[in-house]
Amino acid sequence: MNSLKSIKWIKLIVCTVCLCCMEASAQIKRPNIVVFMVDDMGWMDTSLPFGDSLMALNKQFHTPNMQRLANEGMKFTNAYATPVCTPSRISMITGMNAANHGVTNWTSPKKNNSSDYTDDEFNPATWNINGLSTSKGTPNSVYATTYPQLLKDAGYFTIHVGKAHWGSMGTPGANPYNLGFMVNVSGHAAGHPQSYLASENFGNMPNKASLQAVPDLEEYFGTDTFLTEALTLEAIKALEDPVKNHRPFYLNMSHYALHTPLMADNRFYQKYVDAGLQVEAAKYASLVEGMDKSLGDLMDFLKQKNLDRNTIILFMSDNGGLSLAPPRDGQPHTQNLPLRAGKGSVYEGGIRVPMIVKWPAVVKISTISRQPVIIEDFFSSILLMAGIKNYKTIQQVDGKSFVSNLKNPNLTIEDRPFVWHYPNKWIGTDGPGINYYSAIRMGDWKLIYSMRNKTLELYNLKTDLGEQHNLASQSPGKVNELASLLTKELKKSNAPMPTYKTTGKRLPWPDEL
Amino acid sequence: MNSLKSIKWIKLIVCTVCLCCMEASAQIKRPNIVVFMVDDMGWMDTSLPFGDSLMALNKQFHTPNMQRLANEGMKFTNAYATPVCTPSRISMITGMNAANHGVTNWTSPKKNNSSDYTDDEFNPATWNINGLSTSKGTPNSVYATTYPQLLKDAGYFTIHVGKAHWGSMGTPGANPYNLGFMVNVSGHAAGHPQSYLASENFGNMPNKASLQAVPDLEEYFGTDTFLTEALTLEAIKALEDPVKNHRPFYLNMSHYALHTPLMADNRFYQKYVDAGLQVEAAKYASLVEGMDKSLGDLMDFLKQKNLDRNTIILFMSDNGGLSLAPPRDGQPHTQNLPLRAGKGSVYEGGIRVPMIVKWPAVVKISTISRQPVIIEDFFSSILLMAGIKNYKTIQQVDGKSFVSNLKNPNLTIEDRPFVWHYPNKWIGTDGPGINYYSAIRMGDWKLIYSMRNKTLELYNLKTDLGEQHNLASQSPGKVNELASLLTKELKKSNAPMPTYKTTGKRLPWPDEL
Repeated sequence: MNSLKSIKWIKLIVCTVCLCCMEASAQIKRPNIVVFMVDDMGWMDTSLPFGDSLMALNKQFHTPNMQRLANEGMKFTNAYATPVCTPSRISMITGMNAANHGVTNWTSPKKNNSSDYTDDEFNPATWNINGLSTSKGTPNSVYATTYPQLLKDAGYFTIHVGKAHWGSMGTPGANPYNLGFMVNVSGHAAGHPQSYLASENFGNMPNKASLQAVPDLEEYFGTDTFLTEALTLEAIKALEDPVKNHRPFYLNMSHYALHTPLMADNRFYQKYVDAGLQVEAAKYASLVEGMDKSLGDLMDFLKQKNLDRNTIILFMSDNGGLSLAPPRDGQPHTQNLPLRAGKGSVYEGGIRVPMIVKWPAVVKISTISRQPVIIEDFFSSILLMAGIKNYKTIQQVDGKSFVSNLKNPNLTIEDRPFVWHYPNKWIGTDGPGINYYSAIRMGDWKLIYSMRNKTLELYNLKTDLGEQHNLASQSPGKVNELASLLTKELKKSNAPMPTYKTTGKRLPWPDEL
Repeated sequence: MNSLKSIKWIKLIVCTVCLCCMEASAQIKRPNIVVFMVDDMGWMDTSLPFGDSLMALNKQFHTPNMQRLANEGMKFTNAYATPVCTPSRISMITGMNAANHGVTNWTSPKKNNSSDYTDDEFNPATWNINGLSTSKGTPNSVYATTYPQLLKDAGYFTIHVGKAHWGSMGTPGANPYNLGFMVNVSGHAAGHPQSYLASENFGNMPNKASLQAVPDLEEYFGTDTFLTEALTLEAIKALEDPVKNHRPFYLNMSHYALHTPLMADNRFYQKYVDAGLQVEAAKYASLVEGMDKSLGDLMDFLKQKNLDRNTIILFMSDNGGLSLAPPRDGQPHTQNLPLRAGKGSVYEGGIRVPMIVKWPAVVKISTISRQPVIIEDFFSSILLMAGIKNYKTIQQVDGKSFVSNLKNPNLTIEDRPFVWHYPNKWIGTDGPGINYYSAIRMGDWKLIYSMRNKTLELYNLKTDLGEQHNLASQSPGKVNELASLLTKELKKSNAPMPTYKTTGKRLPWPDEL
């Protein structure tokens, strides 16, 4: 072997070693991802304005850590979920629109048990009452691939903490381990906690526990640790191993707060009473601030571990703020003003939610995107953030990635239809946009279809965010256009529809009115 | 650079690369470790004889997978636990003798709540009624380092599935995450399941759940999956990630079976009824066979994943078989014959347990060790198996590694004292060796100290396994020797002792009689 040849050999070997190192290093550099999911949080339930200015309701709340997150990232002012929790959670984790996955209402903890109220006029739609399943053949379920599974398959350490509510007891979807999570703390089939109080064992009192008693938190029983705090502590505990081993992690930090039962988080409650809020409003604001503290604690933890630069945080809510009063204080359906109505409704109050994304390497600080996005967009976005490509899914994915918006706050992507389909009876008495509704947004226009009233309402969100001025009669062309588009989307998804009790026939599609 | 030099260079680089590979390979080669822990399993509750021959009780049971495990490894015929569960579980995980850790009785799920029966004569000993804590300053707890934590620190993926029972609710020990486990399924503060039946939601029925309702298994609710099977399926699920990523794992497969409530495992029950067993005996035998199937399923899984050659399996029970009747069938204290008494007792029936170790690279197949070993020996043994050295512990570790015995079945290590200390009132009415007893074994000799009766009994286990012939009066020298040794050990451990209600004074040490 001559010198030249041997030098080439050395180079080859050194390069090989370097490549190995680089691969290892690339692995380490994959971003960590945290979805910080709040339950039932309305668009106005924060001191961080998502509207054009700080408004009256914003001033009731203190959420300094949401402000901090927005200062370090991008605020989305046109972000949407579905009107209630399970449909949103399944849309997020599968990338499917609710009309497509067919879990159009919240799932009962009990298997094969519809949560729909009975109705005099309509038979219930045939929706997937057991929720999501990753096992083929589970009855009354949507069979789909989840992004936590794809993240796990790609080497992520996947953690779920808090509310799950993806599937009913007795089906695989009840257990986050079946949905791609390696660690699960307190996630199960229930959609709300029996109690936020450790002094009440979060509901686990002998002979008093309901199906909503929160599992896995016994170490806090009998103490004064509020549920929100306990979940945060457990999340940080679960992060210990991936952090130590430089393994990229996905944390689904999924708070039970702010769901009913509205209970005071005593670390913050008195402050709001002193500020003049009514009792339930003060409880609610304390739940909000407890959640905000959790966000801050996680951000502090990441910073302390020197992981903040390589961790993406996505803040999201699963539906609009509850506007039923009681249990809320005040007049019903005023709790999300200027947005109309609240949770359960296809009006903006029920579906428009606070969303923030921090991604240090990519997102410019203190930016705002007005791009409409919807909860099923998280699926493609998160996989793209993680650098996972060419993955296979059982389902047709409806959502689109918002990563290009993250890269450019001023980017406006071509209009696409956003569809809400809620052909269910959520509460006993119909409310504004509540019970048997579909809706579509395309650009600034929004069409509301009431199956009960056989009406189509048309709003221009640019000029009428509060959906107060029905333009249907003056813009029949736009109504027809959107009714056709909504119908097309619903038919494409084979969307479930109720039937008439009298005839057994399906209710009309919006374009059949 | 000349040729010779450059060749040296190449050699150096190649060696470096090889060393890196070897290190990676060594990491991969670290053995996986499974502790297969059965609750309340007696020495005779198996078709695998741990005595010198197959005896009557062995013939009541079918445990083909225990036989298979013994065929592939080593059977320990002189293995000991403590008389009840929590002391054993804490001894195992900390390496401390019960007299030393001071958790001498089972822990109540409720914090600061002694499980001792009240007694007319004695005040209870000041034992650590809240169990184990890994946080300093937890009241009424032993503060210690666990081997799962040391395994995790060394890179092991640590999983707990099933019964935990290391600490009371409201203390860190209630949560396996605080004891070094990264995954916990169904482990909490309770010591038995409310129900083995998924049709009863393992106890999680609204308004009927007790503190013993089993958490985390909602996906099976309403099905016909027996608890033992559900835990096995969850364990295999939790192994998916470490197996895929070639990360060494530690699995604490900790069955709730065979603890009361004795419930039929319907996959096996009828067979035992048909064989002529009484109802409770048939239920018990079905619990045993369900547990045995779990062992077989795990062994099959490891084989299928090609991990069986590099996985150590340690089979153990936490105390002797229950001999109270009812709930068992038959005469009380006959269920472990030829051993005397059962769970709760310091006689052999309460403490001698089935133990098997399979370690393909080290243990010769179908071997038997007659070396006395005790449950705190697991601590040092497991860490040695994992190649973990120079670790630091908060506590003084009492147990000794039995790895040298695994390497040589004929090895007999010099006699050392084995101590049992149970200064508690376990049941309402005293039984044989039950309530306020200590004991010591040294070689073939065993001394039994009854605090109530102020008596010392002496047995020679070699000639009198059933502890029927008290040799105290004919061997006073041996009695004195063992009483001194037991006293020395108890004093060294600062062992808790009851006091007299009349005088408030401590009960005598055995050498004070």
